[in-house]
Amino acid sequence: MATPAEKHLYPIVNTDVALFTLIDMQLRVLLIRRANRPDPGGWALPGGIIKPEIDHSLEDAARRMLVAKTAVNVPHLEQVMTYSGPHRDPRGWSVSVLFFALLPSDQVSAVAGSKTEATDWANPEKPGRRLSFDHDQMRVAALTALRTKVEHGALPLHLLPARFTLTDVQRACEAIMGRAIDKSSFRRQMKTARDLVPVAGAFVRGAQRPAQVYRAAAGFAF
Amino acid sequence: MATPAEKHLYPIVNTDVALFTLIDMQLRVLLIRRANRPDPGGWALPGGIIKPEIDHSLEDAARRMLVAKTAVNVPHLEQVMTYSGPHRDPRGWSVSVLFFALLPSDQVSAVAGSKTEATDWANPEKPGRRLSFDHDQMRVAALTALRTKVEHGALPLHLLPARFTLTDVQRACEAIMGRAIDKSSFRRQMKTARDLVPVAGAFVRGAQRPAQVYRAAAGFAF
Repeated sequence: MATPAEKHLYPIVNTDVALFTLIDMQLRVLLIRRANRPDPGGWALPGGIIKPEIDHSLEDAARRMLVAKTAVNVPHLEQVMTYSGPHRDPRGWSVSVLFFALLPSDQVSAVAGSKTEATDWANPEKPGRRLSFDHDQMRVAALTALRTKVEHGALPLHLLPARFTLTDVQRACEAIMGRAIDKSSFRRQMKTARDLVPVAGAFVRGAQRPAQVYRAAAGFAF
Repeated sequence: MATPAEKHLYPIVNTDVALFTLIDMQLRVLLIRRANRPDPGGWALPGGIIKPEIDHSLEDAARRMLVAKTAVNVPHLEQVMTYSGPHRDPRGWSVSVLFFALLPSDQVSAVAGSKTEATDWANPEKPGRRLSFDHDQMRVAALTALRTKVEHGALPLHLLPARFTLTDVQRACEAIMGRAIDKSSFRRQMKTARDLVPVAGAFVRGAQRPAQVYRAAAGFAF
């Protein structure tokens, strides 16, 4: 291991992940109770120190830690921001690259904390507890990045099961944005979305009439 | 210094900066000819390895290196993206945090390369040479980030001298975006911009009639 002087020369490099999902159509972010130092017992976003001998990139490292801590492997990680400084981690000068990721709502039950770490799906606006380190700042930044992205793309589809209705897409968008969306202009926008493919002959019962079931187009992007 | 095994445990952490300005109302990005290894003689964005003993953050480190390599101190640095991997730098597993910064066009002459490093203000779309490491990828990412930001804010004002006309603002936007902008809708947008303050009694000769001179509002933000 490096001595304190060498730690001084080489900052600690971490990744942290804000993993979002929908639970009962409410936006939730995954928190982990820390088993180890620093701040054992504290709640934080899942993450850890990168291992240059096995990780091929920061994305790789973030994915490895997410699998280790939650047992889920997400298709896509998006960089939010990189945090840094001498005091944000008591182990020394550290850098942490924050990502967000989206988990489809029907895969929430696949998330398993390890033996020593409890998990909680918290409200990303009001998690009800203070997070360790600068993770409250990260939580807010990840939510803002997610909302900005949603206004421009097909992102909410990553939160839905493989089959969904347009009402599901609208509710997912509303859950992310934290506000109601006008239905008629939303429908007009969806009509031209190339990432939505109607599933032939598949309908679910709607309020007035049966609602068409859709799937995401193959290879749809963020 | 750390041994190779310790280097393996602690990645190298760099910052790099895409410093943009306007020269003859053309968007330009600063390139530096590298004096030292790795890749001596290669052209790259200015940057270097952070020094935890003196830098208080990545932004701090980026600013310190920019001052050392160009003698300019920019008011604002904006994070673009963090690059990583075992092969991007021959010295070992490395992380580099990319920033962009904007230099007012009337301060270009203040940029001075150090004795051993030549500088070039290159076209960011077609720099005319291949850059060292993954800096071509960084150049494109920084340009994209800048353009995205320009569509939403007061960013072009950071490229202009302290006093300017609305035509200057439009030309700066066009130079950044790489395309013409419709004058009448641009003017309508500018009329409601709170970051523009007319300078009482200050006009310059225009094509048809004298053009009002403006300044940026105190504390205007990106």
